[in-house]
Amino acid sequence: MTPDLIARFADITGPAHALVTPQDIAPYLVESRGLYHGSSPLVLRPGSVEEVSAILALASETGTAVVPQGGNTGHVGGAAPREGQSDVVLSLARLNRIREVDPVGNVIVADAGAVLAEIQRAAEAADRLFPLSLGSEGSCQIGGNLSTNAGGTAVLAYGGVRQLCLGLEVVLPTGEIWNGLRRLRKDNTGYDLRDLFIGAEGTLGVITGAVLRLFPRPLGHEVALAGLKSPADALKLFERAAERCGMALTGFELMPRLGVDFTMRHIPGVRDPLAGRHDWYALVDVSTSDSAEAARRMIEVLLSEGIETGLIEDAVIAESETQRQALWHMRESMSPAQKPEGGSIKHDVSVPVASIPAFMAEADAAVLAAIPGARICAFGHMGDGNIHYNVSQPVGADTAAFVARRREINALVHGLVRKYEGSISAEHGIGQMKRDELAEVRAGIEIELMRRVKRAFDPAGIMNPGKVLAQDRSTPGSGRYRS
Amino acid sequence: MTPDLIARFADITGPAHALVTPQDIAPYLVESRGLYHGSSPLVLRPGSVEEVSAILALASETGTAVVPQGGNTGHVGGAAPREGQSDVVLSLARLNRIREVDPVGNVIVADAGAVLAEIQRAAEAADRLFPLSLGSEGSCQIGGNLSTNAGGTAVLAYGGVRQLCLGLEVVLPTGEIWNGLRRLRKDNTGYDLRDLFIGAEGTLGVITGAVLRLFPRPLGHEVALAGLKSPADALKLFERAAERCGMALTGFELMPRLGVDFTMRHIPGVRDPLAGRHDWYALVDVSTSDSAEAARRMIEVLLSEGIETGLIEDAVIAESETQRQALWHMRESMSPAQKPEGGSIKHDVSVPVASIPAFMAEADAAVLAAIPGARICAFGHMGDGNIHYNVSQPVGADTAAFVARRREINALVHGLVRKYEGSISAEHGIGQMKRDELAEVRAGIEIELMRRVKRAFDPAGIMNPGKVLAQDRSTPGSGRYRS
Repeated sequence: MTPDLIARFADITGPAHALVTPQDIAPYLVESRGLYHGSSPLVLRPGSVEEVSAILALASETGTAVVPQGGNTGHVGGAAPREGQSDVVLSLARLNRIREVDPVGNVIVADAGAVLAEIQRAAEAADRLFPLSLGSEGSCQIGGNLSTNAGGTAVLAYGGVRQLCLGLEVVLPTGEIWNGLRRLRKDNTGYDLRDLFIGAEGTLGVITGAVLRLFPRPLGHEVALAGLKSPADALKLFERAAERCGMALTGFELMPRLGVDFTMRHIPGVRDPLAGRHDWYALVDVSTSDSAEAARRMIEVLLSEGIETGLIEDAVIAESETQRQALWHMRESMSPAQKPEGGSIKHDVSVPVASIPAFMAEADAAVLAAIPGARICAFGHMGDGNIHYNVSQPVGADTAAFVARRREINALVHGLVRKYEGSISAEHGIGQMKRDELAEVRAGIEIELMRRVKRAFDPAGIMNPGKVLAQDRSTPGSGRYRS
Repeated sequence: MTPDLIARFADITGPAHALVTPQDIAPYLVESRGLYHGSSPLVLRPGSVEEVSAILALASETGTAVVPQGGNTGHVGGAAPREGQSDVVLSLARLNRIREVDPVGNVIVADAGAVLAEIQRAAEAADRLFPLSLGSEGSCQIGGNLSTNAGGTAVLAYGGVRQLCLGLEVVLPTGEIWNGLRRLRKDNTGYDLRDLFIGAEGTLGVITGAVLRLFPRPLGHEVALAGLKSPADALKLFERAAERCGMALTGFELMPRLGVDFTMRHIPGVRDPLAGRHDWYALVDVSTSDSAEAARRMIEVLLSEGIETGLIEDAVIAESETQRQALWHMRESMSPAQKPEGGSIKHDVSVPVASIPAFMAEADAAVLAAIPGARICAFGHMGDGNIHYNVSQPVGADTAAFVARRREINALVHGLVRKYEGSISAEHGIGQMKRDELAEVRAGIEIELMRRVKRAFDPAGIMNPGKVLAQDRSTPGSGRYRS
């Protein structure tokens, strides 16, 4: 990239918002899990949609690859620039306004760079709920949530971010702005462009703003933890909870004892909420709109029935907001608590919920046959079929040698995911990590349709190249996608 | 179309399922509202997905236009063949199996030609709810519901069919079959092809099967009718209901006195449920999962508060399933009851829910200024912003002369829809009726993106040409879309 071109880009944002020194650029090159180390000559931090538009127009004119980046909390290399290339990073961080909160229409309009927790707070200030919630909510941005179709912990009741979004504003690769900021619950006017940009991981355009749905704040909210014998019993409890609570069942999370041990060992303040040890735990979250008593009654009936029938070994209901947060904190700490235990090989998969016990049993057997002593810490959003099937290294094993077997273990686990007609990426997306595997697990016609969409929206191939779909190898450097 | 080509198509389905006589073909050419009268030399009724595939492969090879048709209950000419062309009608009616009901995974898998009411019944037989419900449910097919992104009466609590669909099977214009029959709640693996086919009105491919979500059957279900002074009061009641009932608020429908009079006059068995006359009516539908009492308590509190504060003039709660159905029957009869009153000019629009009273007041004034004595019968799904803004002719007016002013009245109403940032097609789609208007109301870049999608999926332009998007006039008869 020539100094002249860098100067032309910097002119758009002003030099203060065009980072060029290695030290300024460094934080934008590496993901939190440290798996991707890209390179970039330039990080742009535009302050308006018009600046984003001007950046993409210039990128189109000059064939410059652009990587949109939100809070940089991803896990699959989707927002990291490629290694050995001159990708320009386009950070949305300065586009962080809440544009409007409308408690009557039950919508909030936000810039793409607004941090998720800020949106939650703005909703709360208007006595409304924005239900998207995930571990990184303190730093992830809504544009990234939308671009990766984030799921999180309340999908059972409210759906993922795809279901929470009514309209989008998108800057196209040419710099043209598509104003799709609609706030309608029903709108059948042509092809659904909105849902094409959601989950596209910045490869079709740059989301700059969104209209999101708000909900009444629930009057009743109860969180309980149940000790269980097995994932099969957890499934039975989930089925009962779904019948008993219906749409009031907001979360149903599964945790293994090993994960609870990890959190107590490494995460300050985590204590075991139950007196005895149990092999498995279910966190049940119920919220009701009509009365606080309804939630309480639901959770009490569910737990007491479970205990009477022997399904539940022991259980506790959180008695205060502090206790509710503590139970969720334990669940949210499952992943960070694995880090001090050495190397880990992680999988973000989903299968039909009824297949979870069988899938996990087969996966456990296969992983332990390959690596005796591997410590399997499979936990997650059981209610929506999404398991974070994570494997920690055996105690005392060589970390590098363990992690080097990532592809082998991925192949075992993902092979079983395919057997159960599941997904190799339930909520983290494809990015660089699963790009080649996606092409293997999906039918040729499906990949071909995706390629056609990519070419239709980004014929010059400047938008986040090398993510989701492979670039055209036959014309290296052109950025164009094969036809 | 040559006899030889007709014979080749007929070979695929067998002659019994290839209709060629005018009398056999006639029912497939006309919509129920009678606005579109197309022509066709051939109606094919394939009995398998493979036959659909073979038909489209031959159509691609020979450049034959194909019009997919479900229950033929549409209103915008989307499933009717064009006038003066040789479109082949592809009826999905024989692909009508329920493939699987899975009450544990809470999904149902159905052929595209399965009638909506059959799917509802199959769900009920497994003690589950499939919540999609609309007036034509006894004859519309799920493939048509998906292709038009049907909404209906339970969108508030469950979303429209887009939210109810987990996976699709689609035959592409080339005859290739995309098996996207996934049953996952979370799956972030590349571009969202599913939502592109949903709502595409058969212009990108033929939906042949779908995985749909099931829900627990609610334990509590209450339906009430409230007499009100105005749409503004209806909005206040809706806001209160949304706060009080949250996700338990399943339906909130608005009806004018005129519509109630029409139903009592023309629909057998409809009686006025309230003693006095009221200018406006709200039908409130609440369903709860935890207990029957919860729904009863909610609706009683809502109505008694409304009456105490003077918001509601009078109200009744249905006391039996028969009464609940009677209230809904009155609402569903609004449209058919207009027919005997002479000509009508109809609009299926949505605006942000808080703008409904202002929109309706302005629209009423504009319509009455244009046609004094016009009888405005605006009713619909107020809770999701969707109003069927229908106008019946003045008493004794000339029907043909009234209907001839359709474009003028459409322009008035849709102009106000645009002012309020609404949609000119909330749930019926674009078809032929609103195709040219769509190109006017949407930004050029949005129409251009839709054209690119169309070309990417159907480069030969054989799929339902002339619907949603205009054909390329520069190469008449080629079926190709301009670039």
